[in-house]
Order: sequence, then C-alpha cells, then structure tokens
Amino acid sequence: MSSSLKEQDILVVLSGGQDSTTCLFWAIKNFRNVKAIGFNYGQRHELELQCARKICEENNVSYEVLDMGLLNQLTTNSLTRKDIEVQAAKEGESTPNSLVEGRNMIFLTFAAVYAKTHNIKHIVTGVSQSDFSGYPDCRDTFIKSLNVTLNLSMDYEYVIHTPLMWLDKCDTWKLSDDLGVLDTIKDRTLTCYNGIIGAGCGICPSCLLRARGLEEFYKKYR
Amino acid sequence: MSSSLKEQDILVVLSGGQDSTTCLFWAIKNFRNVKAIGFNYGQRHELELQCARKICEENNVSYEVLDMGLLNQLTTNSLTRKDIEVQAAKEGESTPNSLVEGRNMIFLTFAAVYAKTHNIKHIVTGVSQSDFSGYPDCRDTFIKSLNVTLNLSMDYEYVIHTPLMWLDKCDTWKLSDDLGVLDTIKDRTLTCYNGIIGAGCGICPSCLLRARGLEEFYKKYR
Repeated sequence: MSSSLKEQDILVVLSGGQDSTTCLFWAIKNFRNVKAIGFNYGQRHELELQCARKICEENNVSYEVLDMGLLNQLTTNSLTRKDIEVQAAKEGESTPNSLVEGRNMIFLTFAAVYAKTHNIKHIVTGVSQSDFSGYPDCRDTFIKSLNVTLNLSMDYEYVIHTPLMWLDKCDTWKLSDDLGVLDTIKDRTLTCYNGIIGAGCGICPSCLLRARGLEEFYKKYR
Repeated sequence: MSSSLKEQDILVVLSGGQDSTTCLFWAIKNFRNVKAIGFNYGQRHELELQCARKICEENNVSYEVLDMGLLNQLTTNSLTRKDIEVQAAKEGESTPNSLVEGRNMIFLTFAAVYAKTHNIKHIVTGVSQSDFSGYPDCRDTFIKSLNVTLNLSMDYEYVIHTPLMWLDKCDTWKLSDDLGVLDTIKDRTLTCYNGIIGAGCGICPSCLLRARGLEEFYKKYR
C-alpha cells in the first residue's frame, strides 16, 4: 500500500446527517477518489439519503444506496410474530421503532464487501465515542476489532478511519469549519428525528445536541 | 453464565447441508434448548432449506429463515450496473453465480442479532478449517476474531462453537455416526451443486468430497 493517502481511494458510509457528511468532506480533502454508500431501511431515511445524494452530485462523488429492508426482520416486533418465514418489510413501509442492535456492524460489513468489489481499502465512518450516547458499536475498541475481523474475513487490508471518534459536537462543527463547509453542514444535512433539514425542529434530542454544539462552537471560535 | 451447557440454549446456523445438520444434532445432544436459523438468497437454497425444515420439525426445533435477497446487491454483476439505487433480487430469481465475499460474516452477524433478541448466547456454525477450500472466513482465527467483535458490538457474551473446525469430511461422518444420525445425514441433507438430496449427482466437487469422506469413514470404522 502506498504511504500517501492522496494516492488512495476511500469509501464513505454516508447517511446525509451532520457526522457522515462532515466525513465526506474530510475524505474529499484527504484522498484521491471518493465513493459513498448509503443504506435505506425505512421511510425516514429516504429524506436523509436525498440530502446525501444532492451533496454527492455537486461534488462529483458517486453515491449508491443499498436496500436494507431485511433489517426489519430482526426487530423484536417481527421476531415475536409466529410466522415460520419472516418477510422483509415492504418498500414504503415506515421504519419500526425498535432499534436493530448490531446495525453498525452490519452496515460496515456490507460497506467493506462493497469496497473490496471496487478495489477500495479505506473506509470512513462518522462514529464518535465522545458522543456515543451509550451505543457499544460506536466505541473505538469495537471499530478496531471490527477492522481486524474484516481483514481476516476477506483476506484484505482494510483501513477504517474515524475522524470524529474523539470529537464532541462542538469539535465536529469546528472540523466542518476548517474544511470550509460549515454552512453546507448547517443548512443541508438532516439529523432531526422529525425530518426537518438543517436546524430541524429544535425540540428533539438530536436537534438539541446539534444546536448546543453549534452554540459552543460560535462562543469558542467566532 | 452457568457452567453446564446442558442448562444453556443455543442457536444453530442451519443450511440443510451435511455440516450444519451434523451441528444441529451436536447441539441437540449438548444443550438444553435448540433454535435454528437459515438464510435464503436464491432458488438453489430453497431446496436445502426444505431439508433443514423437515429435520427441525421432527426434532421439535424451531426454524426461521431470513430473506437475504439483498446479498445479491453486492455481487459484481449488480455493482457494475449503472443504476444509482441498486435493487435487491426479486423473489424467485436464481442465485447469481458470483460468490459474495464476507458472506459468512454477514450471516453470523445476523444470527448473533437474532440470538440476542431471544436471549441466546451460544451459536454453532459448521465451518471447518481442515476442509475450508481456501475460504478465509472458514478459518479458526476469523471465527475467534468475529466472536470478540460481536461481543463488543452488542455488549453481550456470545460463545461461537465450531465442532467441525478441525475435522475433515471423514471425521464429520464419524461424528454423525457417534451422534446416531449417520443415515439421516447421508440420505436427507443436500450439498450437491445440482440440487440432488442425499448421495447427490455424484459428479460435482461437493458430491465427490462428500463421497470420498464417507468411503474413508467406512474403511476406517466399519
């Protein structure tokens, strides 16, 4: 593997939210060629993915979305049904409320298979331990262990990058400012639980976290 | 966790082939309660899964099949298409020829999520390094690394069992004989590439491997 990242290609796991979109611009700055991949497993995500697609188009980044409807087979709801054969959710159905555990692991594994098919070794994901809200699959140790397992699984030298791992929300805003894309991230990404792009509804936990970080950033750096 | 496996539950990753069906009976002998899970991602597998389902029914083992059609999105064929949004294969379509790399990792991760939802910590898979035909994701090191990654991913104490890891095909026949199910495995599992149950077509590489092992077993132990 060459030593310079500027000669390497990278795959961005891109949802269209603040964190992964910041990673997209980090990748564009630091790598030669950037591809992005997204995952669709319910209606709410479609809007997020549209945000991602537009930004990719403007930056000449190819963006593919994989259908992950089958994840809905793994929610407690589905599993407590008595059907012998569990069916994937129909297209257009909304996401079940229950979070699928292990989701990050499933997404990153699919991303890795996709990357190898395209001869890409570098993968970037926006997970953050400083900001991880209790999810075990956002921790640094998990990502490193996954990196090793993926390499063994496919006899390949993946390198998983996590530029946000030790950043809190304020630091993440700072990073997007350093990358020259603060406004793009602020106005055109979607993290709001109520599906409102940019500043969002202002009430849901995700909007509060985002707003608090931005406020802190302005205080510290402007 | 209790020390005796006889007080524990286990999930069998069951395709209906020789190896995973042998693992099913190994699990029935050694654990308290056994569940099984299978994966459907193309027509050839449906026949295998029928073999699995019948044997499960007779042994009062619940068997659920997850739809893995989305794997077809990851084959080279799909990925070289120009569609922005890759679609999962329609039900009834045949499997693409291309093997999806990382498949074992994807299946075992789904199995693990399923297991946790059912409060099951033990998982058994029929992979074998002695017999691995070059697949990196059948190696012992990979399985152990995956075990650690899964535990980190979901903060859970999974134990992945691989009773066939160091057995060749002859040893695997011996194990099914010791478990008292040699005939069931011989006559009612499907490993033939041409979809013929039991002894199979007798010509494909899988049938040859299976027959050679059985012959060796008869010579050694009968």
